[in-house]
Amino acid sequence: MSNIQKLEPIYSGKAKTIYTTNDSGKYISEFRDSLTAFNGDKKSEAPKKGYYNAQISRKIFEMLEENGVETHYKGMASGADMIVDIVEIIKIEVIIRNIAAGSITKRYPMPAGKVFDKPIVVFDYKNDDYQDPMMNEDIAFALGIATYEEMAYLKEAALKINSILVPYFDKNGYLLPDLKLEFGRANGKILLADEISCDTCRIWDKVTKESFDKDIFRFGDGDLTKAYEAVARKLVPEIF
Amino acid sequence: MSNIQKLEPIYSGKAKTIYTTNDSGKYISEFRDSLTAFNGDKKSEAPKKGYYNAQISRKIFEMLEENGVETHYKGMASGADMIVDIVEIIKIEVIIRNIAAGSITKRYPMPAGKVFDKPIVVFDYKNDDYQDPMMNEDIAFALGIATYEEMAYLKEAALKINSILVPYFDKNGYLLPDLKLEFGRANGKILLADEISCDTCRIWDKVTKESFDKDIFRFGDGDLTKAYEAVARKLVPEIF
Repeated sequence: MSNIQKLEPIYSGKAKTIYTTNDSGKYISEFRDSLTAFNGDKKSEAPKKGYYNAQISRKIFEMLEENGVETHYKGMASGADMIVDIVEIIKIEVIIRNIAAGSITKRYPMPAGKVFDKPIVVFDYKNDDYQDPMMNEDIAFALGIATYEEMAYLKEAALKINSILVPYFDKNGYLLPDLKLEFGRANGKILLADEISCDTCRIWDKVTKESFDKDIFRFGDGDLTKAYEAVARKLVPEIF
Repeated sequence: MSNIQKLEPIYSGKAKTIYTTNDSGKYISEFRDSLTAFNGDKKSEAPKKGYYNAQISRKIFEMLEENGVETHYKGMASGADMIVDIVEIIKIEVIIRNIAAGSITKRYPMPAGKVFDKPIVVFDYKNDDYQDPMMNEDIAFALGIATYEEMAYLKEAALKINSILVPYFDKNGYLLPDLKLEFGRANGKILLADEISCDTCRIWDKVTKESFDKDIFRFGDGDLTKAYEAVARKLVPEIF
């Protein structure tokens, strides 16, 4: 894996760029320092953000693989460059909520901080032109995005991943109010794809409830790099 | 039943007023001529609208009961006054879509008129303060609105009702692009409640695709009473 090299960028998202490589079965996902929120209306950069998110993601993917979750993660090419399987991304954001925060508190009468008795799983249609609207199994089928069987698998996988991550973050001193997952198809399987990082999870200090995630950028003026570094120091102390 | 009388109005919605009666187990639901759309932003009146909708609803409830669907319908007290079981309304609008029309064509890339291979069932949280947002089973459970078992029942019942109504409307010369159902709890059962009428369904002429429903009021300037009367003449010819 150490000789794998980036060739051409083929897709650039809000925070990562995907490159072809000299291995025909692999891509490299470069975690960038760019930040966006509110469907791209707010933009910025945070130094080392990409590096910390890539390392946190790496650690979480490794840990999930050890727990029987199949992911697209195949190693690191460098600090912020993740080697991944080539997958066909399923155009669904799978959101799992353990504690009410953010959009759900505006959309429904759910006070921020409310701890749910059971995790809430929501499917959003990953489509910027339509502002990622909430969807369900019937709509996914009608749009040709996923089969009913795939949707059932996504929900089951999301709940399993959440049940592994909540105690993992707890052990490291954090609550996990919510997280966003993406999945992709490869060789007849569905793999966990994208990233799991401070950009895609809400991560709160267990005691102070302080945010260590992208809400610092969305709503605050705190030092995002410092917060992400703090999470990295807990989850991946070996890089310091 | 013929001696049942309205006593006090206890709830007034957008198009119906619910009255207590001299029968402690029954309410009377009065279908009014008032019209609202876009969450109450647009308002009007249409003469005889309440009467036609009440009679169409009566006929549909009777037909559904014959097909094994339990409803709150218990007879008519007069032309626009329906006798109903007292139910605890479940705060969910169950929407079934057979053909893309209205909001779904704006929310997702689904062209108006697209016929779905399978009906789409969507649950909206019936809450004007929050503009009736889309929800799912997990959110219903978290809000304490319904159990998982109830949600499964609502979906099953909605699909059954739709499978009865589509051929029924077809036989009468109409397509049924979508409909909205509400349900209520009574004596440990879940009953179909509210109404099924030109206000709560999209009804299109099979050939011309012309609207015979509230879209005439929402988007057009046609004669709503005349359209509702036309549907009533097909479905309940005995009242003419």
